[in-house]
Amino acid sequence: MEKKHIQFFENLVGVENVYSDKAHLLAYSYDATRVTYEPDLVIFPRDEKDVQNILKYCNDFGIILTPRGAGSGFTGGALPANGGVVLAFEKHMNKILEIDMQNMVAVVEPGVINMDLQKAVSEKGLFYPPDPASQDYSSIGGNVAENAGGMRAAKYGITKDYVMALRAVLPSGEVIQAGKKTIKDVAGYNVAGILIASEGTLGVITQITLKLITKPKLKKTAMGVFSTVEEAMNAVYKTMASGVTPVAMEFLDNLTIKAVEQKFNKGLPTDAGAILITDVDGNLEEDIETQLLTIKKVFSENGSTFFKIAKDENESNELWFARRNASQSISIYGSKKLNEDITVPRSKLPQLLEKIEKISKKYSVNTPCFGHTGDGNVHTNVMVDGKNEDELKRGYEAIEEIFKATVELGGTLSGEHGIGLSKAPYMKLAFSEAELNLFKAIKKAFDPNNILNPFKMGI
Amino acid sequence: MEKKHIQFFENLVGVENVYSDKAHLLAYSYDATRVTYEPDLVIFPRDEKDVQNILKYCNDFGIILTPRGAGSGFTGGALPANGGVVLAFEKHMNKILEIDMQNMVAVVEPGVINMDLQKAVSEKGLFYPPDPASQDYSSIGGNVAENAGGMRAAKYGITKDYVMALRAVLPSGEVIQAGKKTIKDVAGYNVAGILIASEGTLGVITQITLKLITKPKLKKTAMGVFSTVEEAMNAVYKTMASGVTPVAMEFLDNLTIKAVEQKFNKGLPTDAGAILITDVDGNLEEDIETQLLTIKKVFSENGSTFFKIAKDENESNELWFARRNASQSISIYGSKKLNEDITVPRSKLPQLLEKIEKISKKYSVNTPCFGHTGDGNVHTNVMVDGKNEDELKRGYEAIEEIFKATVELGGTLSGEHGIGLSKAPYMKLAFSEAELNLFKAIKKAFDPNNILNPFKMGI
Repeated sequence: MEKKHIQFFENLVGVENVYSDKAHLLAYSYDATRVTYEPDLVIFPRDEKDVQNILKYCNDFGIILTPRGAGSGFTGGALPANGGVVLAFEKHMNKILEIDMQNMVAVVEPGVINMDLQKAVSEKGLFYPPDPASQDYSSIGGNVAENAGGMRAAKYGITKDYVMALRAVLPSGEVIQAGKKTIKDVAGYNVAGILIASEGTLGVITQITLKLITKPKLKKTAMGVFSTVEEAMNAVYKTMASGVTPVAMEFLDNLTIKAVEQKFNKGLPTDAGAILITDVDGNLEEDIETQLLTIKKVFSENGSTFFKIAKDENESNELWFARRNASQSISIYGSKKLNEDITVPRSKLPQLLEKIEKISKKYSVNTPCFGHTGDGNVHTNVMVDGKNEDELKRGYEAIEEIFKATVELGGTLSGEHGIGLSKAPYMKLAFSEAELNLFKAIKKAFDPNNILNPFKMGI
Repeated sequence: MEKKHIQFFENLVGVENVYSDKAHLLAYSYDATRVTYEPDLVIFPRDEKDVQNILKYCNDFGIILTPRGAGSGFTGGALPANGGVVLAFEKHMNKILEIDMQNMVAVVEPGVINMDLQKAVSEKGLFYPPDPASQDYSSIGGNVAENAGGMRAAKYGITKDYVMALRAVLPSGEVIQAGKKTIKDVAGYNVAGILIASEGTLGVITQITLKLITKPKLKKTAMGVFSTVEEAMNAVYKTMASGVTPVAMEFLDNLTIKAVEQKFNKGLPTDAGAILITDVDGNLEEDIETQLLTIKKVFSENGSTFFKIAKDENESNELWFARRNASQSISIYGSKKLNEDITVPRSKLPQLLEKIEKISKKYSVNTPCFGHTGDGNVHTNVMVDGKNEDELKRGYEAIEEIFKATVELGGTLSGEHGIGLSKAPYMKLAFSEAELNLFKAIKKAFDPNNILNPFKMGI
C-alpha cells in the first residue's frame, strides 16, 4: 500500500491502531478455513466516526476493505482475498452498550463476543439464544454478517430472528440506521434484513440491536440410539412434526460415533447407525415431562434401541460429550476436512443421508456427518489426506455431488457458515443467472465502486 | 392505454381476464384509504408464466404496473396512483398449494385469503399466527407486501417472521426463488427479507412459503381497567418485561371506551382512563394460571382498579367486544379518520400517549387511540369533519407532530400499515438523505425502468 495512505490512516486513528508490519499482517491473514491471505494494512477503528472516515477514504482511493470479527469463520468471509485494509473490531468497538430490561433488548458493538453477551443477559434473567459452535470466541458482528446459527435453532431460530436494528456505514462513509427497538416496523425497505448474512459486502455494521427473551427455568437432555441413519432421520422430522419443539435435536452418524469412541473411550455404541441427542426446555416440570414422553414415543416408533433421560446436569454433560467432541475426533479419518454445512427441509434428511453415503462410496472417501438435524442442518465432513492429490480431487468431486444432491432435495449450500470464498464456485449450482445478476445489482446499489469485501459469495 | 397493448394482454391471458371497461376499472381504483385512482387496465394472471409475460411486456413498453391483493390496505400501496396496469390475484392465483405437515410449512399463491389459510392449517392442528384486523378478506400476498402485523405480534411476531421463501417475478420477466423450506439458509443475499414490506415496488410475488407452528391447546382472556392511560401503559411494558409473554395486550383509551359504549351500551366503565385486554395461551392449565397471576399482579401494582378473567369463550368474546368494535365506533368523533399506526419501544408508551394528548389539545381534535400496545403499536386516530377545511388542516398538522414525537421516542411511522401513498410525505421525518438514497438505489437494482408501483414509499 502506498505510504501516503498508511500515513493518512495513522493520522486518523493513531499509530497504535494501524498495523503494517509483517508479523501483524500475518496474524490477520487467516480464519477457520486455514487458507491465508495477507492484508496490506490492519486498522482498529475506535468508533463509528473512524469507520466513516476510513470507508470514505478507501472509497475515494479505490482501496479494498474487509471487515473482520473474530476471524472464526469457516468460509473465508473475513479473509482479505484481494489485499487492502482489514477493519478489525476486537480492540475498541467491543462493548455491550445497553441491556434494556424494559424492552428486552440489547445494544452492542460488533466486536462483542457472543458468549460475553449470553452471560451478561443471563445474569439479568434474559436469554440470547443464537449459539454457534464458535460462541466462546466469535463476535456478534461476525455472527450477524454470516447469520450464524447453532444448536438451538430448531426451537429458537438463528441470528436474523434476533436482529431488530443495525447501524451501518456505507462505502460512501454515510451512516444508516436500519430498524428500531420495536417489534413492528414497516417504514422503508428492510435494509437490516439484507445486511444480515451479507458477509461484509454491503456495509460495515457498527451497532446491533438484539431482541432478548425470557430465560426458561428448566432444561433436560435425552439421548436415543438407532440401528440405522434412516430410522434416526425419520425420528427427527417426526418429532419436530409431533407438536413438541426441542431446543436441539443433534445427530452423530456411525463414523462420528466410532471416532469419538476411539479418541475418548466413553463406552459409546460403536455398532449404532446413529445417535440423537436432544434438549427440551420450559418453565414447568409437567411441560418438560410431556415433551420427553412424546420424544421417547416417537423415537421408539422409529426403531430406537436405547433411550436415556439425563437425571442431572452431570448426566446431561455426559450425553452431550460425544456431540461436543465430534468435530475434533473425526480428524482420525484424514488430515484435511472438507467441512460443509448443507441444510435440507427436515423431511428430506433420510434421503440426504442416503445420498451422502452413496457418494462417499463412489469417491472412496470417508464422510462422517453430525449436526443440527432438528433444523435440517447436517455438518458433512469429507475427510481426505491433504497431501494425496488424487484423494483431494476425489474429495472435491464428492463435495460437488453432495451440493447437487442437496439442491435437488430443496436444500441450501449453507445453513450457517456462509458462502465467502470456499463455496463461491458452487453458487451456480444453487442460483439461476437471474438470481446471481440480482445479487450483483444489490451489491452495486450499496457499493458502486466494489471496495467492500469484493468477489465474495460468487458476486 | 393504447389499443395494441390491450390486445396484446387479451391475446395473452384471454379476454375474460382483462378488464378495460369503466365500471370494472372503478372497482379496482380503491383501497381502505378511500382515496381512488383508476387504472387503465386490470389483468388477472392465470399463473406465474402469465405474470412473467405481462411484466416483460410492461417493462419493454414502459407501462406502469401495480400488483394488488385484496385492496384492503390502509396506505394506498395497491392504488395505481400513476395509472397503468393493475395485476390482480384474486381470480386465479389464489390457491393453497401445499400444507406440508412433515416440515410444518404451507406453500400458497398470493391471492389466498389470510383467514382461509388460518382455517386450513388449524384443521390440521397447526397455527399461522399473523392476524391483521383485515384477516377475513386480506390476501397473503398483500400481507407479505405490507409485512402485516396484528394482535398476536406481542408473542408470535409478524408476517416476516413466518416467510421462509418467496418466488417473485422481476420487471425483466425473470423468476427468482428467494429462500427455501429450511430454517437455516445463508446462501446469497436475503432477497426474501427485502421483498417483504416492499409494497410491490421491487418484484411481483407469485408463491409464498410460510412457517407454521403447533397450535397451543389452551387460551384465556383477561381484562384490566385503569384510571389513567399512564398507569395502563406502565402496566403494559412491565408485564412484557416480567417474564410472561401474552399473545395479545390490547388497549383502549377513554375516548374509545366512550365511543363503544355510546354505540353498543355494554356497561363499559366510561370514566376509566384505559382498558387493557389480554390473551395468554399454552398447553398446560398450570402455565395459563401462572401467566394470568403474574399479569394480575403487575396490573395491580400499576394501579388497575378492576381485573377480570374470562371463565369461558363467551366471556372471552364479551371482554373482546369493545376492542373488536373500537374502529367502527370512533366514527362518532368525526366523518374523516386520519388513521395512523405509529409504534414505539414499549417502555416509551407512557410518554407517547402523553404527547398525543397534548397534541390533540393543541390542535383541538379528538384523537381516540387503541391497539396493539403489547408490541408498542398504537392506532392513533385523528378524527375530523372531512368537510371542514380548517379542521382537516389542523388534523394533518396534528398527525405531522405525532409522527415527529414518535420518531423522537425511537419509534416508527408505521408498525403494520406500510407507507404507500399516505405516509410518503413523512418519510423525511424518519429517514436521512443517505437512507432515502439507499432505498432509491435498491429500487433501481430491482426495477431499473421504474415500472413497478413507482413513487410509493417516498422513493
